[in-house]
Amino acid sequence: MPAATDTTRAWVYDLNDGSAEMRALLGNKGANLAEMIHVLGSETVPGGFTVTTEACVEYMSNGPPPGLDGEIDAALAALEEQSGLGFGDPADPLLVSVRSGAPVSMPGMLDTVLNLGLSEACIDGLARRSGNPRFAWDSRRRLVQMFSEVVRGAPADAFEQALSESRREAGVAFDHELGEAALRALTARFLGLYEEHTGESFPEDPRVQLRQAVLAVFDSWNNERAATYRRLNGISADLGTAVTVQRMVFGNMGEHSGSGVAFTRDPTTGEPRPDGDFLLDAQGEDVVAGVRNTETLDDLERRMPAIHAALLDALAALERHYGDIQDVEYTIEDGRLYILQTRNAKRHARAAVRFAVDGHREGLFSREGALERIEPSSLVALMHPAFDPSAEIEVLTRGVGASPGAAKGAIVVSADEAVERGEQGEDVILVRPFTSADDVGGFHAARGILTSQGGKSSHAAIVARGMGRPCICGASEVLIDPGTGTVRIGEVELHAGDRIAIDGASGVVTADDVELVEPRLDEAFTEILSWADDVRRLGVRANADTAEDATRARELGAEGIGLCRTEHMFFGSDRESLVRDMFIAGEMARRDRGAGETGAHAAAYSAALTELAKIQRSDFVALLEAMEGAPVTIRLLDPPLHEFIGAAVFAGELTDAEARGDAEAVAAARERIAVAGDLEEVNPMLGTRGARLGLHLGGLYEMQVRAIAEAALEVAGGGELPDVEVMIPLVAFPNELSTLRTMVEATVADVLGPRSLSVGTMIELPAACLAADRIAANADFFSFGTNDLTQTALGLSRDDAERGFLPGYIEHGIVERSPFETIDVIGVGGLVAIAVERGRKAKPGLSMGVCGEHGGDPDSIAFFDGAGIDYVSCSPFRVPIARVAAARAALSG
Amino acid sequence: MPAATDTTRAWVYDLNDGSAEMRALLGNKGANLAEMIHVLGSETVPGGFTVTTEACVEYMSNGPPPGLDGEIDAALAALEEQSGLGFGDPADPLLVSVRSGAPVSMPGMLDTVLNLGLSEACIDGLARRSGNPRFAWDSRRRLVQMFSEVVRGAPADAFEQALSESRREAGVAFDHELGEAALRALTARFLGLYEEHTGESFPEDPRVQLRQAVLAVFDSWNNERAATYRRLNGISADLGTAVTVQRMVFGNMGEHSGSGVAFTRDPTTGEPRPDGDFLLDAQGEDVVAGVRNTETLDDLERRMPAIHAALLDALAALERHYGDIQDVEYTIEDGRLYILQTRNAKRHARAAVRFAVDGHREGLFSREGALERIEPSSLVALMHPAFDPSAEIEVLTRGVGASPGAAKGAIVVSADEAVERGEQGEDVILVRPFTSADDVGGFHAARGILTSQGGKSSHAAIVARGMGRPCICGASEVLIDPGTGTVRIGEVELHAGDRIAIDGASGVVTADDVELVEPRLDEAFTEILSWADDVRRLGVRANADTAEDATRARELGAEGIGLCRTEHMFFGSDRESLVRDMFIAGEMARRDRGAGETGAHAAAYSAALTELAKIQRSDFVALLEAMEGAPVTIRLLDPPLHEFIGAAVFAGELTDAEARGDAEAVAAARERIAVAGDLEEVNPMLGTRGARLGLHLGGLYEMQVRAIAEAALEVAGGGELPDVEVMIPLVAFPNELSTLRTMVEATVADVLGPRSLSVGTMIELPAACLAADRIAANADFFSFGTNDLTQTALGLSRDDAERGFLPGYIEHGIVERSPFETIDVIGVGGLVAIAVERGRKAKPGLSMGVCGEHGGDPDSIAFFDGAGIDYVSCSPFRVPIARVAAARAALSG
Repeated sequence: MPAATDTTRAWVYDLNDGSAEMRALLGNKGANLAEMIHVLGSETVPGGFTVTTEACVEYMSNGPPPGLDGEIDAALAALEEQSGLGFGDPADPLLVSVRSGAPVSMPGMLDTVLNLGLSEACIDGLARRSGNPRFAWDSRRRLVQMFSEVVRGAPADAFEQALSESRREAGVAFDHELGEAALRALTARFLGLYEEHTGESFPEDPRVQLRQAVLAVFDSWNNERAATYRRLNGISADLGTAVTVQRMVFGNMGEHSGSGVAFTRDPTTGEPRPDGDFLLDAQGEDVVAGVRNTETLDDLERRMPAIHAALLDALAALERHYGDIQDVEYTIEDGRLYILQTRNAKRHARAAVRFAVDGHREGLFSREGALERIEPSSLVALMHPAFDPSAEIEVLTRGVGASPGAAKGAIVVSADEAVERGEQGEDVILVRPFTSADDVGGFHAARGILTSQGGKSSHAAIVARGMGRPCICGASEVLIDPGTGTVRIGEVELHAGDRIAIDGASGVVTADDVELVEPRLDEAFTEILSWADDVRRLGVRANADTAEDATRARELGAEGIGLCRTEHMFFGSDRESLVRDMFIAGEMARRDRGAGETGAHAAAYSAALTELAKIQRSDFVALLEAMEGAPVTIRLLDPPLHEFIGAAVFAGELTDAEARGDAEAVAAARERIAVAGDLEEVNPMLGTRGARLGLHLGGLYEMQVRAIAEAALEVAGGGELPDVEVMIPLVAFPNELSTLRTMVEATVADVLGPRSLSVGTMIELPAACLAADRIAANADFFSFGTNDLTQTALGLSRDDAERGFLPGYIEHGIVERSPFETIDVIGVGGLVAIAVERGRKAKPGLSMGVCGEHGGDPDSIAFFDGAGIDYVSCSPFRVPIARVAAARAALSG
Repeated sequence: MPAATDTTRAWVYDLNDGSAEMRALLGNKGANLAEMIHVLGSETVPGGFTVTTEACVEYMSNGPPPGLDGEIDAALAALEEQSGLGFGDPADPLLVSVRSGAPVSMPGMLDTVLNLGLSEACIDGLARRSGNPRFAWDSRRRLVQMFSEVVRGAPADAFEQALSESRREAGVAFDHELGEAALRALTARFLGLYEEHTGESFPEDPRVQLRQAVLAVFDSWNNERAATYRRLNGISADLGTAVTVQRMVFGNMGEHSGSGVAFTRDPTTGEPRPDGDFLLDAQGEDVVAGVRNTETLDDLERRMPAIHAALLDALAALERHYGDIQDVEYTIEDGRLYILQTRNAKRHARAAVRFAVDGHREGLFSREGALERIEPSSLVALMHPAFDPSAEIEVLTRGVGASPGAAKGAIVVSADEAVERGEQGEDVILVRPFTSADDVGGFHAARGILTSQGGKSSHAAIVARGMGRPCICGASEVLIDPGTGTVRIGEVELHAGDRIAIDGASGVVTADDVELVEPRLDEAFTEILSWADDVRRLGVRANADTAEDATRARELGAEGIGLCRTEHMFFGSDRESLVRDMFIAGEMARRDRGAGETGAHAAAYSAALTELAKIQRSDFVALLEAMEGAPVTIRLLDPPLHEFIGAAVFAGELTDAEARGDAEAVAAARERIAVAGDLEEVNPMLGTRGARLGLHLGGLYEMQVRAIAEAALEVAGGGELPDVEVMIPLVAFPNELSTLRTMVEATVADVLGPRSLSVGTMIELPAACLAADRIAANADFFSFGTNDLTQTALGLSRDDAERGFLPGYIEHGIVERSPFETIDVIGVGGLVAIAVERGRKAKPGLSMGVCGEHGGDPDSIAFFDGAGIDYVSCSPFRVPIARVAAARAALSG
């Protein structure tokens, strides 16, 4: 009930009369306190009242609202009665805090003034009550300082200077070492400063203090920082701010007092029992400061069993009311428990999952509520090994956490060395300035990767995430000399073979032999995932290139493979030279054809293709068998040609041939270098890739399609064909797909007769989105390659952006997050939406997936769910995250 | 009237009964002949009849239509009566041709059989009538050969072999040297081959010949090539083909016969008097073959004044009827004139323009009709110097005509040499394997550019077109040794200093000292342009970076500058090192700032900016003065950073410093090389450019904006500010523009006080098109950069595409034309349309231009007109073309 019932509009509400729904009128602070009183009763929460936002609005237009002072007086009288204290009473002084409370969170405004009511006449009374004169004088000097600075705008410097003079005179280092006498003298200095700044003496009338503080909060609504913030965030200036006035309670009133912080359950494990810190005869700030060692809740139980029981009751009530783990601040004043604040507790992902399951079982919320209480991106922490959280380690440096998980092993500075030592069973960490396609073999062999350059979008980061290898990028303090194998980090000099450990989530590098904790899909996580599966609309597949990846993906719940990158199957030391020979011979054969010739190059090309076909076929068989009939989308080759045949690769060949004096080999190497040079591109990202390569080279895609069809036939073993989908990458023009589809169908028919395979395409260029209706005519499915779509739609090279301008863009708020992590909804998302609409219009029911890295990003998944995508595909370790994210998207959709 | 009026549906139409509108029934050939008869009367066109497409359709379903033979007989009888000849008459044989005539042009079908009716019994009669037995036997052997091959499908090889044997036996080199006896023997051989292939004797009954020929045409409708062509071009197989049978007339019947070709007016100049070739006693093929020297129309007048008068009447009637210059084939048989064919004449652009103006004045068509008769792209030929068309030159080689116009001069093989010799007033042609930004100074100095690599989209081509310099690219036979200055073309070895001439339209290279003909905007062209201006909706501006370009653009009718590329103002030997210093210092200063330092780099950066500001300001003043108040859009800097500061540039600096033993200079050079190396990008096209550079570096854009504002103030001279528009390039995110706009406005206000400049942005990224509504909030105008939009929308690097897969794509019909020449309507055009719609929705009336190279392409201009663009901007030499193209777009829209 409002404090003033005799006017049509009350300016002041008692905290008992508010509720969480009244944020617009009472501000966040006032509404939240009122809500807590509803849960715990007015005995357990310090009383107070709120001056409404309407009073603020009135004040801004017409000055102090008529009747406001009277309403405040009435509310104060009620508070005095409830507390048994008197505002300005020298014996038992009531002290209050004043806090601003906008309806929306808003930095830049006057925040808090404490200890209002502590006039000179009341200091001794407070000293007596607390038995602590030093505390009383410290509270007084704080009031004078805060009031001067925040209510009257006195410069903070002058007060800081006075403080430091006091410390010097007392010969102490810290404020808390100043004694009563020093604080008395300091207070006198502060009062002098107040007079100097304002030309008035400090207001000793508590009501004047309170009135000025309330109006100062109102005034701060229109200060420059607040106004700028509102303009940038589109918040109306008409909202106004409320002011909440609350009785202050003190935990430093002696043996029957204290303060503490408690969690309603363990925030690390989720174990369902309260946990917290407690300090006898202390204020809350002492608990946080860590100056004294805290006690546990068990200690509190021993010292004050009744209070302990009351606290447990309050914790249970709060958790039940808010339906979430609570982080609660409390104070015991003279044998009475007061709850000061409660909020949802920050927690480790494991605790979040456990609580979601337990909370549902305890009837706190529904299964949907359980899913809503899990932040999918936090689940990453559960999917990878981690440093033992209890271990104390020396951090050598920090880089960008580019692929989560922890790893340790011996330093190697080249991919070859990684392969060599890895094959001998040694755990190694590959440490390089940066990585390229040549290093990918080393990624397989290493436990983790550390680079001094690049960021989350660098080659190292992307490949590592794809393989689930922990990776730190851009650790710029790491200086690597690949020649000598020396790795210098700050003052520390390491050498190849020395052991280090890296945490790809936090970016931490250490030389300590820290224990690693293995990840596990525990019972609670498994349960949550099954609930998510019941709710979600989006399918979840995995990007996987090997039977090993496929098996892991199945274990983690993938419903198929959304992307098998056949170029990844071409990596590995034994295969790469074969692939190189194939490309060089193919390109030369193509030129011969153009010149009307056939001959040695065509034969060499054909031989290399035959050899590769065998390898591809057995790889595909293994992959299909691992997936046990679930759909598998195989993308035909899509690398920039020069990645396989850069001129540099053949330089060594030439040197060798020259050394041997083998004239024929010299000529051959020279020819290969020339061809490779011709194929170098200014912008390889926009070059001869994907469908272009397939059409340009001829024979290569046919070989792959034949290998796929033959593998399908073998796996079928006379029964049903496995669910294989052939995917054509990088289509820009409808004719590319129609031409290649004809080839695919002819090749498949040659192997499978009347049975056919599904044929679809990547949609990864803006023009393809616009032409989606025409492309759909020849596609059984679309798969959005949002990585490349992001690069082309935004004109942003993934390889360059993170070491170029993008970090500055994020820092200065031009973009909120990297568009490679979370989809750019307007531009890239807009193109996806157009393609979905046009594709489905031309071919209703056309299957549409997403296989870019965004497929594993929760915010992007929410967008895809809304855009009508059928499934997302992500790296195996992201599959559980995607399942939960998809469920949450369905719930909020 | 149909030949058979007694059935509800006639299968055969006399040529007199058809018209141009009856293409669906009579095919193109039959309808066109009928139309010509309407114009000239049945006396002047050899008679005949057409078997309809309906007969073909009926035949394909049910075999030969009942009554068809009877209708053909009746039509033949009419033809015999009209011609006074008899079909199979030994004395006066009527010979006919049979031609297929589909309703749409369709390669791959049986085309023509001549001389039908020339049975053995008729040979002597024809010999007598023509007085030329050799001709009669040659006609006979042709009938046998054509009938065997095209009607009965006998292999052509066998006939060719027999022919070559005959030549060997007669001891002659060419067919026309075979005498009557040899032809008799050859005919006998051919008849033997016929029997061998068919197992029958050659049908001597003319009616059997005709019937078989007609049905063979019908059958050819469904042959494989025709069916494939229809499928690829979406032509229905149900259309069927007609067959036109026409009396053959002969110009080799003696002194009162002859053949010729005539144009209704001069196809080179457009001069309004008929022009043509004539041969007495000869067939049309003799005129074309060029074996005998032809006579003129004046000779015809002298020989046969009445025929000459009749021919002029016919030419005038045809031109008036078709409303266009006609290219007419005629034959005089025994003192009677026959017109065989008329079609719109191919003409030089100058003739097209002259005819368009004259034709309108003569009342042949309206002004709109005049504009419709000009192919805008052909006007290129009028805008540049050309080889003297009458000169006979030896073509050394041909490359890609990459920038039109002809030029001649001494060979130089380096840009530096071009600058050096060019400054001495020498005409030079820059001959390079390819060019880069380093060579741009040489472009200015050279008269033309010749490269052995690259195509129409290469660096050389784009820069040359922008500057209006003639350029040939990809002349792969040209082998250049820059070291020795040797240029080898096939067998010819040239050296630096030797003179060559190039034609950038045809791609021809010659060493002859050919005369060049200068371009001129003659009276007719000026007239047409004024008509175009009356009609067009689109504005036309020019892309120009110098006062010289701007002046030329104004002369050619540009209504403003749509794009001034400030980076082009940074080229030139004296400026480049200053710009390099600025970039290096700026990047180092940026890093210092990041590390919390300020110092020497910031000072050096600031000094370089101050120096550049002076240069920019005076450049802008000159540009604005040249444009005399017309709008000028100035784009802030948009190069890839590394183009100015590639590491290679500083390598020489390092070598010099080392040679001098200057340790400080060595260190400085090393530092610059390191910075330049850091700035190298994997995909520069998608790198730190445009707005990104402006935001990344800081200070640079401010300098440019200040220079623009100061220049505007100076040019205003106390009066009205000139119409300057500041354009921000490469915006992907709305926040980029809002941030930069704030900077621009503050800088402009600092110079101009309350007066402001228009601020807009390039729309050249797909994401910007999708976000156009949000971007419009901070833009006074949009200018579509369709070059970059094409690169990003299609994922196609301009630098790589033309030497990569794109030529193959065009060759194989995956795309019709290079998307860099004519806009890709679905993808790139679709994005433009979205941006126009969203931009105008957010800000109605928002000005929108196009400043990519497509702005000068007629087909693209038609698209932009339809898309609601306000103006196009193109290179100055393209302005007249754009004016005409815009008019045609408005007329057809």
